Amino acid sequence: MEETRKRIEVCFTPGEYDYFKDEFEIVVVIDVLRATTAICAAFDNGIKSIIPVPTLEDAREYKKQGYLVGAERKGQIVEGFDFGNSPYSYMKEEFKGKEVVLTTTNGTKSIAAAKDADTVVIGALVNLDAMIEWLIKQNKNTLCLCSGWQDKFNLEDTICAGAISEALIATGNYTSIEDSSIAAKYLYISAKDNYMGYLKSSSHRRRLRNLNLNKDVKYCLTPNLSKSVPILKDGKLYNQE
Amino acid sequence: MEETRKRIEVCFTPGEYDYFKDEFEIVVVIDVLRATTAICAAFDNGIKSIIPVPTLEDAREYKKQGYLVGAERKGQIVEGFDFGNSPYSYMKEEFKGKEVVLTTTNGTKSIAAAKDADTVVIGALVNLDAMIEWLIKQNKNTLCLCSGWQDKFNLEDTICAGAISEALIATGNYTSIEDSSIAAKYLYISAKDNYMGYLKSSSHRRRLRNLNLNKDVKYCLTPNLSKSVPILKDGKLYNQE
Repeated sequence: MEETRKRIEVCFTPGEYDYFKDEFEIVVVIDVLRATTAICAAFDNGIKSIIPVPTLEDAREYKKQGYLVGAERKGQIVEGFDFGNSPYSYMKEEFKGKEVVLTTTNGTKSIAAAKDADTVVIGALVNLDAMIEWLIKQNKNTLCLCSGWQDKFNLEDTICAGAISEALIATGNYTSIEDSSIAAKYLYISAKDNYMGYLKSSSHRRRLRNLNLNKDVKYCLTPNLSKSVPILKDGKLYNQE
Repeated sequence: MEETRKRIEVCFTPGEYDYFKDEFEIVVVIDVLRATTAICAAFDNGIKSIIPVPTLEDAREYKKQGYLVGAERKGQIVEGFDFGNSPYSYMKEEFKGKEVVLTTTNGTKSIAAAKDADTVVIGALVNLDAMIEWLIKQNKNTLCLCSGWQDKFNLEDTICAGAISEALIATGNYTSIEDSSIAAKYLYISAKDNYMGYLKSSSHRRRLRNLNLNKDVKYCLTPNLSKSVPILKDGKLYNQE
């Protein structure tokens, strides 16, 4: 039985991705607070595509060419850019049908790390059920790549990855063999009834609270606000549906 | 209040140690299955000192010089060496009062990574309470460095680190700010009443079971068999008590 099941595994940080890659057809990049949540919100609000770039230099280059460009570092909008990674910043008429560029502290770094995988999709708590449904339809070996915070493990991405893992394993068609995946599942099970409470001591949430971003945090930790399943094609993100 | 408390944090793998070092006076190196457990067992059984070395080449060099040398890779004794990292292999008369050399897949690699810290000590579930008591007496900023399995996260080291963290925080004199430390504590709390059951799906335990090392695994997962608190001094491990 076991060998016919697909794998669903969790990698805690982009720095560990090299130990996992090559075994998975699909990589789900997760940065709950806030890049991948913002990307889902952008597609919900009718954006056409997003070009994720890892560095500020790349972002400045696009800005010169006239693109709408978002840039966030350490939770704040970088000077000289139009917006950061608050999901609310994408809920404006002016974005509809547009192609925008985005660079963030952690999320776009993970997308860059995963870019050579067969398929890269964007996961968050806001599109949890839409993502799970889409992944189950694909029935491929799947890795959840958590973005972490400045190369370190973070709780909110891990809990999101644990939620995806648990749902896929529950179908009977998937299995996990890595300890990181088992831990993610346990952490999700302890957290699922109260994300905000569970994450109250989380380092990144605390950091955003200090920046007065509590409204953003609440949005980011609310499951299933979005039906978007963003996918990377030729270096640009599009919505699949 | 907060700023007078010492920190107790958890680093999941040696590969992430660089993001943590320099902030901690004490590093507790943990490799529950089986290197740090075996080191505690060795001191319980009257060994004088252990020279941990990261590579097989180093180990061979010592063997040429006539030392008793243990070498383990991927759970098995390396050909040409006297013993590996089974705790039972140290429970022999011939080791009493001796200096031995040891290299293992993960544990001695972590010791090598941490070697420049002010103080490096050896933790495992078998010396949990002895270690906690010793750490509380020191009252210093403390990092638990988990050895993981081939550079990836593992559950048993993380649970041991979570147990140490929880006990130190319970004194009121310590605090954790990293998400990895919070996760380790949660995982310990879920696991503490039944380590064997909790770890039944753990990848490394499964690997050792396949090698018929169930007796070793039971020993390694039994808290407080040992009163040893091994410490690194000038490249050699000694027992403090």
